[in-house]
Amino acid sequence: MSDLAVSLADIEAAAARIEGVAVETPLLESAALNERMGLRVLIKPETLQRVGAFKFRGAYNRLVQLTEAERKRGVVAFSSGNHAQGVALAARLLGIPALIVMPADAPKVKADATAGYGAEVKFYDRLTESREKIAAAIAAERGALVVPAFDDPHIIAGQGTAGLEMVRQARARGAELGCVVVPCSGGGLLAGVATAVKALSPDTVMVGVEPAGYDDTRTSLAAGVRTPLTPTHRTLCDALESPCPGELTFPILQATVSDIAVVTDAEVAEAMRYAFSVLKLVVEPGGSAALAALLAGKVATRGAKTVGLVLSGGNVDPDQFAQVLRGEL
Amino acid sequence: MSDLAVSLADIEAAAARIEGVAVETPLLESAALNERMGLRVLIKPETLQRVGAFKFRGAYNRLVQLTEAERKRGVVAFSSGNHAQGVALAARLLGIPALIVMPADAPKVKADATAGYGAEVKFYDRLTESREKIAAAIAAERGALVVPAFDDPHIIAGQGTAGLEMVRQARARGAELGCVVVPCSGGGLLAGVATAVKALSPDTVMVGVEPAGYDDTRTSLAAGVRTPLTPTHRTLCDALESPCPGELTFPILQATVSDIAVVTDAEVAEAMRYAFSVLKLVVEPGGSAALAALLAGKVATRGAKTVGLVLSGGNVDPDQFAQVLRGEL
Repeated sequence: MSDLAVSLADIEAAAARIEGVAVETPLLESAALNERMGLRVLIKPETLQRVGAFKFRGAYNRLVQLTEAERKRGVVAFSSGNHAQGVALAARLLGIPALIVMPADAPKVKADATAGYGAEVKFYDRLTESREKIAAAIAAERGALVVPAFDDPHIIAGQGTAGLEMVRQARARGAELGCVVVPCSGGGLLAGVATAVKALSPDTVMVGVEPAGYDDTRTSLAAGVRTPLTPTHRTLCDALESPCPGELTFPILQATVSDIAVVTDAEVAEAMRYAFSVLKLVVEPGGSAALAALLAGKVATRGAKTVGLVLSGGNVDPDQFAQVLRGEL
Repeated sequence: MSDLAVSLADIEAAAARIEGVAVETPLLESAALNERMGLRVLIKPETLQRVGAFKFRGAYNRLVQLTEAERKRGVVAFSSGNHAQGVALAARLLGIPALIVMPADAPKVKADATAGYGAEVKFYDRLTESREKIAAAIAAERGALVVPAFDDPHIIAGQGTAGLEMVRQARARGAELGCVVVPCSGGGLLAGVATAVKALSPDTVMVGVEPAGYDDTRTSLAAGVRTPLTPTHRTLCDALESPCPGELTFPILQATVSDIAVVTDAEVAEAMRYAFSVLKLVVEPGGSAALAALLAGKVATRGAKTVGLVLSGGNVDPDQFAQVLRGEL
């Protein structure tokens, strides 16, 4: 276990750094959801986090540790949107210049918000250009630090604070989480949360959720080795389109995750509508993936009676959300 | 003060009755909203309450006090939707037969949910029929108890538990509410919350919010007497269409409320979009009225630096919400 990039101690340190800056999102419970599932579901709504997604936790934990000299040289990040906003806001709060490299087709709300936080934004074509190369070139030019979206111990530890909170908040109401379900892209959130949860509650079953066509983590775990996939189509879950689990996140997932469920876009849209009408929460497609899996009966809870559910983000274009509400998606 | 229908003690008793049944909704804070307003805004999201609106509190407080004989005879309620759902769910939980009299043009989600909780629903034409007469006739026929939407001390006390929680939750984080803003229709929520807040925090400024064209409470307070108005048009705020403050609620409002702000449908739609994009919360039109007033600069906070804001409900038809998101409303 000591080979793994992140420990509980790292996550506790991260929690101390982000305290009073990030939101300790409340643990929510819905009698209606409990009744439907025949379970006690404890919801961790990272939709209510600053920048509307869990990404702020890791970004702030990373950036606040930069030295004065590093801060002056600034940061560069590449992101589909939520990490971009997380880095942009953290950078603004800390007075650090930030450049974000985003796909030209990122949801407009995410691009606008990123610029709105004061970051410089550079768009690229996801199909023809390599974001890593672009970011690395800029970083070399400016001496800026590249802030990865998931493959960084401080980023993973920051995301893990959500898991720390979940276990403590559940215990504060006399509950033990038998299973925790988390959306998965590069695996930063899942790895961080799993590290915290398994350290505090070793018997808890960890389940990740990926979109159909982007189940690289499931494939990789089955193969025992990181196996990138070549996507053949897009998914509604713009935040979960990483084609390969991270170098640092993968070993953590191997050590902690029992299952990866896979959800269709239709199931995700259904979950968004459910969150809208029953939970009264705005959740973006990727952010709804775990809820989608739960509602679709795709979570192997291993008999758990109390399930922790992460809603990882709520940054969705109003037009797209309207389409989902209307059943057009 | 002792002439008033409700006291702090009544509200504390109500809190004990609803504990573990109603949700103690978390107090939320948005750095973005604070920044925009230049204030600390502490949000009480009754959208996250059971049935998606504060109404469940009063309904349960009332119904749980019925004797065995009264329970067998059942209850009748007339409501535009949220009280209907509150009564229907409370009745189901307590095994009490319930009949709800609803306007034929009530939002479909509210009518469906009411029936979904197991209540019998009878529709009426709001323009040509009197809901009070219909309900009274049914009550006489069945010996059932009429459960008013706001003009009942137990209903008001139940709603007031939201105010009790707000003050305590604010103090738990070291904050004092200088001003509290609450949507207002018949005045049950405003009266209940004001009773609790002013008893615990006498210097707090209470502000109610009504929709344009339905500012009967503002007019009545100015006149010093209940003054019904004849509406000349509908409002987006289907939950705030009471044309006259209640007999029991009005004296409480006279004793506790400093101001009534009035918001337009456009301002309400703007607030709903703001709640969607910044707060990641689904709020119905009437439920957004206080937020609308705050965002529009219409709340006379009297210099308060910390403002409590109630989001009273989140039951809105997906189609209507989509229209609001698209700017069509």
